[in-house]
Amino acid sequence: MKALVLQKENLFPTLQDFQQPVPKEDQVLVNLQAAALNHRDVWIANGKYPGIQFPVVLGSDGAGLAGGKPVVIQPGIDWGKDERFQSKPYQIIGMPQNGTFAEYISVDQSQVLPMPEHLDFLHAAALPLAGLTAYRVLFTRCNSTAGEKVLITGIGGGVAVTCLQFAVAAGMKVFVTSSSDEKIEKAITLGAIGGANYKRKTWPKEIQELAGSGMDVIIDSAGGDSFSHLVKLCSPGGRIGIYGGTDGPIPNLSPQLIFWRQISILGSTMGSNKDFAKMLDFVEQHKIVPVVDMVFKLENANNAFERMSEGQQFGKIVFDMA
Amino acid sequence: MKALVLQKENLFPTLQDFQQPVPKEDQVLVNLQAAALNHRDVWIANGKYPGIQFPVVLGSDGAGLAGGKPVVIQPGIDWGKDERFQSKPYQIIGMPQNGTFAEYISVDQSQVLPMPEHLDFLHAAALPLAGLTAYRVLFTRCNSTAGEKVLITGIGGGVAVTCLQFAVAAGMKVFVTSSSDEKIEKAITLGAIGGANYKRKTWPKEIQELAGSGMDVIIDSAGGDSFSHLVKLCSPGGRIGIYGGTDGPIPNLSPQLIFWRQISILGSTMGSNKDFAKMLDFVEQHKIVPVVDMVFKLENANNAFERMSEGQQFGKIVFDMA
Repeated sequence: MKALVLQKENLFPTLQDFQQPVPKEDQVLVNLQAAALNHRDVWIANGKYPGIQFPVVLGSDGAGLAGGKPVVIQPGIDWGKDERFQSKPYQIIGMPQNGTFAEYISVDQSQVLPMPEHLDFLHAAALPLAGLTAYRVLFTRCNSTAGEKVLITGIGGGVAVTCLQFAVAAGMKVFVTSSSDEKIEKAITLGAIGGANYKRKTWPKEIQELAGSGMDVIIDSAGGDSFSHLVKLCSPGGRIGIYGGTDGPIPNLSPQLIFWRQISILGSTMGSNKDFAKMLDFVEQHKIVPVVDMVFKLENANNAFERMSEGQQFGKIVFDMA
Repeated sequence: MKALVLQKENLFPTLQDFQQPVPKEDQVLVNLQAAALNHRDVWIANGKYPGIQFPVVLGSDGAGLAGGKPVVIQPGIDWGKDERFQSKPYQIIGMPQNGTFAEYISVDQSQVLPMPEHLDFLHAAALPLAGLTAYRVLFTRCNSTAGEKVLITGIGGGVAVTCLQFAVAAGMKVFVTSSSDEKIEKAITLGAIGGANYKRKTWPKEIQELAGSGMDVIIDSAGGDSFSHLVKLCSPGGRIGIYGGTDGPIPNLSPQLIFWRQISILGSTMGSNKDFAKMLDFVEQHKIVPVVDMVFKLENANNAFERMSEGQQFGKIVFDMA
């Protein structure tokens, strides 16, 4: 079969012939019709992931046909028995197990779920990892509810955009930040009330004025210098969900603000099988259509990886493999 | 009546004649038999509290007689309707409302609760604010349960010692830190498994070795440089309750550790009426006797304030007013 294979770090993966997987007992062979790119794939290709093995078929997100029926793949394996955290053996398909950037993948029966009926393969492939991560941080961890004010930082990435869609669908009042005015405009078309460009130093004040009061929930994947502003933007009882840390360590965090305002800072990554099932239910109930940024063929994967490396995307970068 | 009155900041409060309060409708007059000192009283006397008014009778903790029956006073007023955080008008008796370092206090009917039968006035007076703060941070916020490993930093202060007693009573495995080996020894006699002196740079490793694994819950009131070590000491799914910040801002906090380990950092201060009622139930059920450090007469209040300012105490500093 054809597959996008990483042979060595710091090189783009290449489309090549690769041995077609043979399903073991309790496994299912999925004929992939679409897949989607995640930052994880880019980091692995750049050698910025622990324990990278070669050769590996990259890709954590996929939708396709199993036994003739459309399915979506749950990317996590072995979450474990505690809903609060993943077990040590937990992994995501696409490293070290071969992933979805291929004609076929073998996955456990439990990882294959019916594709939501309102979605096609391209949009269904855009859902799994971003949807799972967004659902867990927004609902399972931050316990966000209708009517609450939610700030989503760095809008544009797959998880942030999915959080925006979920929050709007659930009846929250959503605000965003971005380094791009264009992305803020796109967020508004998706239902955000407004946003601020964080390249301006006045962004915290702008958000405060837009919202008229503090935030009940903030969803952040940056950390770094701006995090202290997020704490100040929180209402009493506010929750800050952290699912990434692209800006590095957080300096100068005030314990006084945290305890006096009864703030919760809640780390979250990926999600359990239960989170995944609840996320799919939510997507079906609200007929949510994931935002697809651009569609590439696997032959042009280099362009897809470049687009994500440069942070140009709004929503998911998808591969059409039909 | 006699009362310990603060006339001006940066002076010790003085015992003097003061007008006896007259209960309003729905209020109760309590003839105080004992009261206890809190850091709050020392900070107010040092002018380190917002909106200080003079003259004021200090004191948030008290036990006494109301209508001939022994009662303990709930120090919080107007928590508000949301269990997650205190409302804006929330206040603690002892500033700006007159407090418990006096022969009499008028408080709302709802603030007066029957004194636990297994306690005398001196020990009951040691309970309210420390017990409320400890209960909320340990149970309501961190959701700590039997069998979990709990680290309590800076053992010696009233809240920390009460947390230790509650955690031991609830069947948790408790570890402590302190700058004093003597306080660690006292914690062990109260049921802690062991502890480390944080004046030694090796304290995080010592705690790790004592426990054999990471902590499920950490209760901290310091913040500052050592906080990053606390995050590293957390097990996956671990919760860090923050109820103070005596060491100031937290530098260099890793978002990666927080999200990858699904850690929760939970600010907590004081507690709701519901927290207070549950705390009293817990104390009665487990027959917990608060640790009294030393007992003073109000005439010698200066010595009590000095002892707390210097951090010499282990448990509560109590005034005998019978």
